[in-house]
Amino acid sequence: MNDLNMQDFLHDLSKTLESRLPQNGGDEQTSYVAKLFSKGPDGFLKKIGEEATELVMACKDEQKQRIVAETADLWFHSMVALTYYGLTPEDVIQELKRREGVSGLEEKASRRS
Amino acid sequence: MNDLNMQDFLHDLSKTLESRLPQNGGDEQTSYVAKLFSKGPDGFLKKIGEEATELVMACKDEQKQRIVAETADLWFHSMVALTYYGLTPEDVIQELKRREGVSGLEEKASRRS
Amino acid sequence: MNDLNMQDFLHDLSKTLESRLPQNGGDEQTSYVAKLFSKGPDGFLKKIGEEATELVMACKDEQKQRIVAETADLWFHSMVALTYYGLTPEDVIQELKRREGVSGLEEKASRRS
Amino acid sequence: MNDLNMQDFLHDLSKTLESRLPQNGGDEQTSYVAKLFSKGPDGFLKKIGEEATELVMACKDEQKQRIVAETADLWFHSMVALTYYGLTPEDVIQELKRREGVSGLEEKASRRS
Repeated sequence: MNDLNMQDFLHDLSKTLESRLPQNGGDEQTSYVAKLFSKGPDGFLKKIGEEATELVMACKDEQKQRIVAETADLWFHSMVALTYYGLTPEDVIQELKRREGVSGLEEKASRRS
Repeated sequence: MNDLNMQDFLHDLSKTLESRLPQNGGDEQTSYVAKLFSKGPDGFLKKIGEEATELVMACKDEQKQRIVAETADLWFHSMVALTYYGLTPEDVIQELKRREGVSGLEEKASRRS
Repeated sequence: MNDLNMQDFLHDLSKTLESRLPQNGGDEQTSYVAKLFSKGPDGFLKKIGEEATELVMACKDEQKQRIVAETADLWFHSMVALTYYGLTPEDVIQELKRREGVSGLEEKASRRS
Repeated sequence: MNDLNMQDFLHDLSKTLESRLPQNGGDEQTSYVAKLFSKGPDGFLKKIGEEATELVMACKDEQKQRIVAETADLWFHSMVALTYYGLTPEDVIQELKRREGVSGLEEKASRRS
Protein backbone atom coordinates (compact mmCIF):
# COMPACT_ATOMS: atom_id res chain seq x y z
CA MET A 1 0.00 0.00 0.00
CA ASN A 2 2.12 2.83 -1.29
CA ASP A 3 0.10 5.98 -0.61
CA LEU A 4 -1.18 5.21 2.86
CA ASN A 5 0.34 6.01 6.18
CA MET A 6 -2.01 4.34 8.68
CA GLN A 7 -0.42 6.19 11.56
CA ASP A 8 -1.10 9.61 10.08
CA PHE A 9 -4.53 8.62 8.85
CA LEU A 10 -5.81 7.30 12.20
CA HIS A 11 -4.36 10.31 13.98
CA ASP A 12 -6.02 12.72 11.53
CA LEU A 13 -9.34 10.87 11.65
CA SER A 14 -9.25 11.04 15.43
CA LYS A 15 -8.61 14.80 15.27
CA THR A 16 -11.49 15.26 12.80
CA LEU A 17 -13.87 13.32 15.06
CA GLU A 18 -12.76 15.47 18.00
CA SER A 19 -13.63 18.62 16.04
CA ARG A 20 -17.20 17.30 15.64
CA LEU A 21 -17.88 17.31 19.40
CA PRO A 22 -20.53 19.87 20.40
CA GLN A 23 -18.04 21.65 22.71
CA ASN A 24 -15.68 22.02 19.73
CA GLY A 25 -18.34 23.51 17.48
CA GLY A 26 -19.40 20.36 15.61
CA ASP A 27 -22.29 21.26 13.30
CA GLU A 28 -25.03 18.64 13.21
CA GLN A 29 -26.47 20.18 10.04
CA THR A 30 -23.43 19.23 7.94
CA SER A 31 -21.78 16.41 9.87
CA TYR A 32 -23.06 12.87 10.51
CA VAL A 33 -20.69 12.52 13.47
CA ALA A 34 -21.71 15.83 15.03
CA LYS A 35 -25.32 14.66 14.80
CA LEU A 36 -24.41 11.35 16.51
CA PHE A 37 -22.58 13.21 19.30
CA SER A 38 -25.45 15.65 19.82
CA LYS A 39 -27.91 12.81 20.50
CA GLY A 40 -25.83 11.24 23.28
CA PRO A 41 -24.12 7.85 23.41
CA ASP A 42 -26.99 5.42 22.73
CA GLY A 43 -27.04 6.32 19.04
CA PHE A 44 -23.43 5.41 18.31
CA LEU A 45 -23.39 2.53 20.80
CA LYS A 46 -26.34 0.99 18.97
CA LYS A 47 -24.32 1.30 15.75
CA ILE A 48 -21.48 -0.68 17.37
CA GLY A 49 -23.84 -3.58 18.07
CA GLU A 50 -25.35 -3.32 14.60
CA GLU A 51 -22.03 -3.15 12.74
CA ALA A 52 -20.61 -6.06 14.76
CA THR A 53 -23.59 -8.18 13.65
CA GLU A 54 -23.17 -7.06 10.04
CA LEU A 55 -19.46 -7.96 10.16
CA VAL A 56 -20.34 -11.43 11.46
CA MET A 57 -22.83 -11.90 8.59
CA ALA A 58 -20.36 -10.67 5.97
CA CYS A 59 -17.81 -13.17 7.31
CA LYS A 60 -20.33 -16.04 7.22
CA ASP A 61 -20.96 -15.11 3.56
CA GLU A 62 -17.18 -14.95 2.92
CA GLN A 63 -17.58 -11.74 0.90
CA LYS A 64 -14.28 -9.92 1.23
CA GLN A 65 -15.49 -6.54 0.03
CA ARG A 66 -18.30 -6.55 2.60
CA ILE A 67 -15.96 -7.79 5.35
CA VAL A 68 -13.70 -4.80 4.74
CA ALA A 69 -16.64 -2.38 4.60
CA GLU A 70 -18.26 -3.69 7.80
CA THR A 71 -14.95 -3.69 9.69
CA ALA A 72 -14.47 -0.08 8.56
CA ASP A 73 -17.96 0.75 9.90
CA LEU A 74 -17.20 -1.00 13.19
CA TRP A 75 -13.80 0.66 13.69
CA PHE A 76 -15.21 4.04 12.67
CA HIS A 77 -18.05 3.90 15.19
CA SER A 78 -15.75 2.62 17.93
CA MET A 79 -13.48 5.61 17.20
CA VAL A 80 -16.57 7.82 17.56
CA ALA A 81 -17.13 6.23 20.99
CA LEU A 82 -13.47 6.67 21.97
CA THR A 83 -13.65 10.35 21.01
CA TYR A 84 -16.85 10.89 23.00
CA TYR A 85 -15.15 9.56 26.13
CA GLY A 86 -11.94 11.56 25.58
CA LEU A 87 -9.90 8.63 24.29
CA THR A 88 -7.86 8.03 21.14
CA PRO A 89 -6.88 5.15 18.86
CA GLU A 90 -3.36 5.55 20.26
CA ASP A 91 -4.74 4.45 23.67
CA VAL A 92 -6.12 1.27 22.10
CA ILE A 93 -2.98 0.48 20.09
CA GLN A 94 -0.91 1.07 23.23
CA GLU A 95 -3.09 -1.43 25.11
CA LEU A 96 -2.71 -3.99 22.31
CA LYS A 97 1.05 -3.43 22.36
CA ARG A 98 1.19 -3.91 26.13
CA ARG A 99 -0.65 -7.23 25.80
CA GLU A 100 1.55 -8.48 23.00
CA GLY A 101 4.52 -7.88 25.24
CA VAL A 102 2.89 -9.87 28.04
CA SER A 103 1.72 -12.71 25.81
CA GLY A 104 5.08 -12.78 24.06
CA LEU A 105 6.61 -13.50 27.46
CA GLU A 106 3.95 -16.09 28.21
CA GLU A 107 4.56 -17.86 24.94
CA LYS A 108 8.29 -18.04 25.57
CA ALA A 109 7.55 -19.46 29.04
CA SER A 110 5.19 -22.06 27.66
CA ARG A 111 7.72 -23.11 25.03
CA ARG A 112 10.34 -23.61 27.71
CA SER A 113 8.23 -26.04 29.73
CA MET B 1 2.86 8.77 22.58
CA ASN B 2 6.56 8.76 22.02
CA ASP B 3 7.44 5.09 21.75
CA LEU B 4 4.60 3.88 19.56
CA ASN B 5 4.41 3.73 15.82
CA MET B 6 0.82 2.58 15.15
CA GLN B 7 1.64 1.88 11.52
CA ASP B 8 4.44 -0.54 12.36
CA PHE B 9 2.54 -2.08 15.23
CA LEU B 10 -0.63 -2.87 13.26
CA HIS B 11 1.44 -4.21 10.39
CA ASP B 12 3.49 -6.44 12.71
CA LEU B 13 0.41 -7.65 14.59
CA SER B 14 -1.19 -8.53 11.28
CA LYS B 15 1.90 -10.52 10.28
CA THR B 16 1.93 -12.32 13.64
CA LEU B 17 -1.74 -13.27 13.24
CA GLU B 18 -0.99 -14.55 9.74
CA SER B 19 1.75 -16.81 11.11
CA ARG B 20 -0.84 -18.41 13.44
CA LEU B 21 -2.94 -19.75 10.52
CA PRO B 22 -2.93 -23.58 10.33
CA GLN B 23 -1.45 -23.45 6.80
CA ASN B 24 1.41 -21.33 8.17
CA GLY B 25 2.17 -23.72 11.00
CA GLY B 26 0.23 -21.99 13.80
CA ASP B 27 0.47 -24.15 16.91
CA GLU B 28 -2.79 -24.39 18.86
CA GLN B 29 -0.93 -25.74 21.90
CA THR B 30 0.95 -22.50 22.47
CA SER B 31 -1.14 -19.84 20.70
CA TYR B 32 -4.64 -18.59 21.53
CA VAL B 33 -5.06 -17.29 17.98
CA ALA B 34 -3.93 -20.57 16.38
CA LYS B 35 -6.52 -22.33 18.53
CA LEU B 36 -9.23 -19.89 17.39
CA PHE B 37 -8.26 -20.42 13.73
CA SER B 38 -8.23 -24.21 14.06
CA LYS B 39 -11.85 -24.26 15.29
CA GLY B 40 -13.21 -22.36 12.28
CA PRO B 41 -14.83 -18.93 12.12
CA ASP B 42 -17.73 -19.26 14.59
CA GLY B 43 -15.38 -19.06 17.57
CA PHE B 44 -13.84 -15.69 16.71
CA LEU B 45 -17.07 -14.33 15.21
CA LYS B 46 -18.83 -15.03 18.50
CA LYS B 47 -16.06 -13.07 20.23
CA ILE B 48 -16.80 -10.08 17.97
CA GLY B 49 -20.44 -10.06 19.13
CA GLU B 50 -19.39 -10.53 22.73
CA GLU B 51 -16.71 -7.83 22.74
CA ALA B 52 -19.03 -5.35 21.00
CA THR B 53 -21.55 -5.87 23.82
CA GLU B 54 -18.84 -5.48 26.45
CA LEU B 55 -17.65 -2.26 24.83
CA VAL B 56 -21.21 -0.91 24.89
CA MET B 57 -21.48 -1.75 28.61
CA ALA B 58 -18.10 -0.18 29.42
CA CYS B 59 -19.24 3.00 27.64
CA LYS B 60 -22.55 3.07 29.53
CA ASP B 61 -20.49 2.83 32.75
CA GLU B 62 -18.14 5.59 31.50
CA GLN B 63 -15.09 3.66 32.70
CA LYS B 64 -12.24 4.78 30.48
CA GLN B 65 -9.85 1.94 31.31
CA ARG B 66 -12.51 -0.65 30.42
CA ILE B 67 -13.48 1.24 27.24
CA VAL B 68 -9.87 1.04 26.04
CA ALA B 69 -9.57 -2.64 27.00
CA GLU B 70 -12.85 -3.66 25.31
CA THR B 71 -12.04 -1.68 22.16
CA ALA B 72 -8.67 -3.46 22.09
CA ASP B 73 -10.47 -6.82 22.37
CA LEU B 74 -12.90 -5.86 19.61
CA TRP B 75 -10.19 -4.62 17.23
CA PHE B 76 -8.00 -7.61 17.99
CA HIS B 77 -10.74 -10.13 17.19
CA SER B 78 -11.77 -8.26 14.05
CA MET B 79 -8.10 -8.41 12.97
CA VAL B 80 -8.26 -12.17 13.60
CA ALA B 81 -11.29 -12.30 11.29
CA LEU B 82 -9.57 -10.16 8.64
CA THR B 83 -6.55 -12.49 8.72
CA TYR B 84 -8.73 -15.61 8.40
CA TYR B 85 -10.28 -14.20 5.22
CA GLY B 86 -6.95 -13.09 3.76
CA LEU B 87 -7.42 -9.39 4.55
CA THR B 88 -5.32 -6.83 6.42
CA PRO B 89 -5.84 -3.73 8.57
CA GLU B 90 -4.41 -1.77 5.63
CA ASP B 91 -7.50 -2.79 3.60
CA VAL B 92 -9.75 -1.35 6.30
CA ILE B 93 -7.79 1.88 6.70
CA GLN B 94 -7.76 2.27 2.91
CA GLU B 95 -11.57 1.91 2.90
CA LEU B 96 -11.91 4.49 5.68
CA LYS B 97 -9.60 6.82 3.76
CA ARG B 98 -11.65 6.39 0.59
CA ARG B 99 -14.82 7.30 2.46
CA GLU B 100 -13.27 10.32 4.11
CA GLY B 101 -12.39 11.54 0.64
CA VAL B 102 -15.97 11.03 -0.51
CA SER B 103 -17.56 12.55 2.57
CA GLY B 104 -15.07 15.42 2.48
CA LEU B 105 -16.36 16.22 -0.99
CA GLU B 106 -19.97 15.81 0.15
CA GLU B 107 -19.42 18.16 3.05
CA LYS B 108 -17.90 20.80 0.80
CA ALA B 109 -20.86 20.39 -1.56
CA SER B 110 -23.37 20.74 1.25
CA ARG B 111 -21.63 23.87 2.50
CA ARG B 112 -21.83 25.39 -0.96
CA SER B 113 -25.59 24.91 -1.32
CA MET C 1 -52.90 -10.38 33.91
CA ASN C 2 -56.55 -11.10 33.39
CA ASP C 3 -57.13 -10.62 29.67
CA LEU C 4 -54.04 -12.31 28.27
CA ASN C 5 -53.52 -15.90 27.32
CA MET C 6 -49.82 -16.04 26.37
CA GLN C 7 -50.27 -19.46 24.81
CA ASP C 8 -52.98 -18.29 22.41
CA PHE C 9 -51.22 -15.02 21.71
CA LEU C 10 -47.82 -16.52 20.77
CA HIS C 11 -49.58 -19.14 18.64
CA ASP C 12 -51.65 -16.50 16.84
CA LEU C 13 -48.66 -14.21 16.35
CA SER C 14 -46.71 -17.12 14.88
CA LYS C 15 -49.59 -17.84 12.46
CA THR C 16 -49.77 -14.16 11.46
CA LEU C 17 -46.01 -14.08 10.77
CA GLU C 18 -46.37 -17.25 8.69
CA SER C 19 -49.05 -15.58 6.56
CA ARG C 20 -46.59 -12.79 5.75
CA LEU C 21 -44.15 -15.15 3.98
CA PRO C 22 -43.91 -14.48 0.23
CA GLN C 23 -45.07 -18.03 -0.56
CA ASN C 24 -48.18 -17.39 1.54
CA GLY C 25 -49.03 -14.14 -0.22
CA GLY C 26 -47.45 -11.69 2.25
CA ASP C 27 -47.83 -8.17 0.83
CA GLU C 28 -44.75 -6.01 1.30
CA GLN C 29 -46.77 -2.87 0.53
CA THR C 30 -48.89 -3.19 3.67
CA SER C 31 -46.82 -5.38 6.01
CA TYR C 32 -43.51 -4.62 7.71
CA VAL C 33 -42.85 -8.34 8.21
CA ALA C 34 -43.62 -9.22 4.57
CA LYS C 35 -41.11 -6.54 3.56
CA LEU C 36 -38.49 -8.03 5.91
CA PHE C 37 -39.09 -11.53 4.50
CA SER C 38 -38.91 -10.34 0.90
CA LYS C 39 -35.41 -8.89 1.43
CA GLY C 40 -33.94 -12.15 2.71
CA PRO C 41 -32.52 -12.98 6.16
CA ASP C 42 -29.83 -10.29 6.64
CA GLY C 43 -32.46 -7.60 7.29
CA PHE C 44 -34.12 -9.31 10.23
CA LEU C 45 -30.86 -10.88 11.49
CA LYS C 46 -29.36 -7.40 11.70
CA LYS C 47 -32.39 -6.35 13.75
CA ILE C 48 -31.66 -9.19 16.22
CA GLY C 49 -28.15 -7.82 16.82
CA GLU C 50 -29.47 -4.28 17.07
CA GLU C 51 -32.31 -5.07 19.46
CA ALA C 52 -30.01 -7.18 21.67
CA THR C 53 -27.72 -4.15 22.02
CA GLU C 54 -30.67 -1.86 22.75
CA LEU C 55 -31.92 -4.27 25.41
CA VAL C 56 -28.48 -4.26 27.05
CA MET C 57 -28.47 -0.43 27.08
CA ALA C 58 -32.01 -0.24 28.50
CA CYS C 59 -30.95 -2.64 31.28
CA LYS C 60 -27.82 -0.58 32.06
CA ASP C 61 -30.14 2.46 32.37
CA GLU C 62 -32.53 0.43 34.57
CA GLN C 63 -35.55 1.83 32.70
CA LYS C 64 -38.27 -0.78 33.05
CA GLN C 65 -40.53 0.51 30.28
CA ARG C 66 -37.65 0.43 27.79
CA ILE C 67 -36.50 -3.01 28.99
CA VAL C 68 -39.98 -4.38 28.24
CA ALA C 69 -40.12 -2.62 24.85
CA GLU C 70 -36.65 -3.81 23.76
CA THR C 71 -37.31 -7.39 24.90
CA ALA C 72 -40.54 -7.27 22.88
CA ASP C 73 -38.55 -6.09 19.83
CA LEU C 74 -35.96 -8.84 20.35
CA TRP C 75 -38.52 -11.61 20.80
CA PHE C 76 -40.57 -10.34 17.87
CA HIS C 77 -37.61 -10.34 15.48
CA SER C 78 -36.46 -13.75 16.70
CA MET C 79 -39.99 -15.02 15.98
CA VAL C 80 -39.64 -13.52 12.48
CA ALA C 81 -36.41 -15.54 12.11
CA LEU C 82 -38.05 -18.72 13.44
CA THR C 83 -40.90 -18.32 10.94
CA TYR C 84 -38.50 -17.76 8.03
CA TYR C 85 -36.77 -21.08 8.82
CA GLY C 86 -40.04 -22.99 9.29
CA LEU C 87 -39.89 -23.02 13.09
CA THR C 88 -42.31 -21.93 15.82
CA PRO C 89 -42.19 -20.52 19.36
CA GLU C 90 -43.50 -23.92 20.47
CA ASP C 91 -40.20 -25.43 19.29
CA VAL C 92 -38.28 -23.01 21.49
CA ILE C 93 -40.48 -23.47 24.55
CA GLN C 94 -40.22 -27.25 24.08
CA GLU C 95 -36.41 -26.92 24.05
CA LEU C 96 -36.48 -24.79 27.21
CA LYS C 97 -38.78 -27.34 28.84
CA ARG C 98 -36.48 -30.20 27.90
CA ARG C 99 -33.53 -28.37 29.49
CA GLU C 100 -35.41 -27.58 32.65
CA GLY C 101 -36.15 -31.28 32.99
CA VAL C 102 -32.47 -32.07 32.61
CA SER C 103 -31.22 -29.34 34.91
CA GLY C 104 -33.97 -30.20 37.43
CA LEU C 105 -32.52 -33.70 37.61
CA GLU C 106 -28.98 -32.32 37.84
CA GLU C 107 -29.93 -30.02 40.67
CA LYS C 108 -31.53 -32.86 42.60
CA ALA C 109 -28.37 -34.91 42.05
CA SER C 110 -26.12 -32.10 43.23
CA ARG C 111 -28.26 -31.60 46.32
CA ARG C 112 -27.98 -35.29 47.16
CA SER C 113 -24.20 -35.35 47.08
CA MET D 1 -47.65 -30.09 20.62
CA ASN D 2 -49.83 -32.11 22.90
CA ASP D 3 -47.99 -32.03 26.22
CA LEU D 4 -46.94 -28.40 26.36
CA ASN D 5 -48.81 -25.47 27.76
CA MET D 6 -46.56 -22.50 26.89
CA GLN D 7 -48.53 -20.23 29.21
CA ASP D 8 -47.95 -22.42 32.25
CA PHE D 9 -44.35 -23.15 31.30
CA LEU D 10 -43.28 -19.50 30.88
CA HIS D 11 -45.08 -18.58 34.09
CA ASP D 12 -43.39 -21.41 36.01
CA LEU D 13 -39.96 -20.64 34.52
CA SER D 14 -40.39 -17.00 35.53
CA LYS D 15 -41.26 -18.06 39.09
CA THR D 16 -38.23 -20.38 39.22
CA LEU D 17 -35.93 -17.57 38.06
CA GLU D 18 -37.42 -15.29 40.71
CA SER D 19 -36.60 -17.86 43.40
CA ARG D 20 -32.94 -17.71 42.33
CA LEU D 21 -32.58 -14.02 43.24
CA PRO D 22 -30.22 -13.45 46.19
CA GLN D 23 -33.01 -11.81 48.20
CA ASN D 24 -35.13 -14.93 47.70
CA GLY D 25 -32.41 -17.27 48.87
CA GLY D 26 -30.97 -18.28 45.47
CA ASP D 27 -27.97 -20.53 46.08
CA GLU D 28 -25.05 -19.84 43.78
CA GLN D 29 -23.47 -23.17 44.69
CA THR D 30 -26.24 -25.19 43.04
CA SER D 31 -27.85 -22.79 40.55
CA TYR D 32 -26.39 -21.26 37.38
CA VAL D 33 -28.97 -18.46 37.48
CA ALA D 34 -28.31 -17.64 41.14
CA LYS D 35 -24.63 -17.36 40.25
CA LEU D 36 -25.45 -15.01 37.35
CA PHE D 37 -27.63 -12.85 39.62
CA SER D 38 -24.99 -12.70 42.35
CA LYS D 39 -22.40 -11.24 39.96
CA GLY D 40 -24.57 -8.31 38.88
CA PRO D 41 -26.07 -7.51 35.48
CA ASP D 42 -22.98 -7.44 33.21
CA GLY D 43 -22.67 -11.23 33.24
CA PHE D 44 -26.15 -11.97 31.90
CA LEU D 45 -26.19 -8.89 29.64
CA LYS D 46 -23.00 -10.13 27.99
CA LYS D 47 -24.77 -13.45 27.43
CA ILE D 48 -27.59 -11.61 25.61
CA GLY D 49 -25.10 -10.10 23.15
CA GLU D 50 -23.33 -13.44 22.77
CA GLU D 51 -26.48 -15.50 22.23
CA ALA D 52 -27.86 -12.96 19.73
CA THR D 53 -24.66 -13.35 17.68
CA GLU D 54 -24.85 -17.14 17.93
CA LEU D 55 -28.48 -17.08 16.77
CA VAL D 56 -27.49 -14.95 13.76
CA MET D 57 -24.73 -17.46 12.87
CA ALA D 58 -27.06 -20.46 13.26
CA CYS D 59 -29.56 -18.75 10.92
CA LYS D 60 -26.83 -18.01 8.34
CA ASP D 61 -25.96 -21.74 8.47
CA GLU D 62 -29.68 -22.65 8.16
CA GLN D 63 -29.32 -25.32 10.86
CA LYS D 64 -32.77 -25.66 12.41
CA GLN D 65 -31.68 -27.51 15.54
CA ARG D 66 -29.11 -24.82 16.33
CA ILE D 67 -31.58 -22.01 15.55
CA VAL D 68 -33.99 -23.46 18.13
CA ALA D 69 -31.20 -23.95 20.70
CA GLU D 70 -29.78 -20.43 20.27
CA THR D 71 -33.24 -18.83 20.41
CA ALA D 72 -33.86 -20.79 23.62
CA ASP D 73 -30.57 -19.43 25.03
CA LEU D 74 -31.47 -15.88 23.99
CA TRP D 75 -34.99 -16.00 25.42
CA PHE D 76 -33.75 -17.68 28.60
CA HIS D 77 -31.13 -15.00 29.26
CA SER D 78 -33.56 -12.20 28.45
CA MET D 79 -35.94 -13.75 31.00
CA VAL D 80 -33.06 -13.71 33.48
CA ALA D 81 -32.69 -9.97 32.75
CA LEU D 82 -36.45 -9.37 33.08
CA THR D 83 -36.44 -11.14 36.47
CA TYR D 84 -33.46 -9.12 37.71
CA TYR D 85 -35.33 -5.88 36.97
CA GLY D 86 -38.61 -7.10 38.53
CA LEU D 87 -40.34 -7.80 35.20
CA THR D 88 -42.06 -10.88 33.75
CA PRO D 89 -42.63 -12.50 30.35
CA GLU D 90 -46.27 -11.48 30.76
CA ASP D 91 -45.13 -7.82 30.59
CA VAL D 92 -43.41 -8.52 27.26
CA ILE D 93 -46.30 -10.50 25.77
CA GLN D 94 -48.67 -7.73 26.88
CA GLU D 95 -46.49 -5.17 25.06
CA LEU D 96 -46.45 -7.34 21.90
CA LYS D 97 -50.24 -7.68 22.14
CA ARG D 98 -50.66 -3.93 22.50
CA ARG D 99 -48.59 -3.37 19.37
CA GLU D 100 -50.46 -5.98 17.38
CA GLY D 101 -53.68 -4.17 18.25
CA VAL D 102 -52.18 -0.90 17.02
CA SER D 103 -50.66 -2.35 13.87
CA GLY D 104 -53.86 -4.35 13.24
CA LEU D 105 -55.74 -1.06 13.18
CA GLU D 106 -53.10 0.54 10.97
CA GLU D 107 -53.26 -2.32 8.52
CA LYS D 108 -57.03 -2.12 8.33
CA ALA D 109 -56.73 1.61 7.69
CA SER D 110 -54.12 1.10 4.98
CA ARG D 111 -56.30 -1.54 3.32
CA ARG D 112 -59.23 0.85 3.28
CA SER D 113 -57.35 3.60 1.45
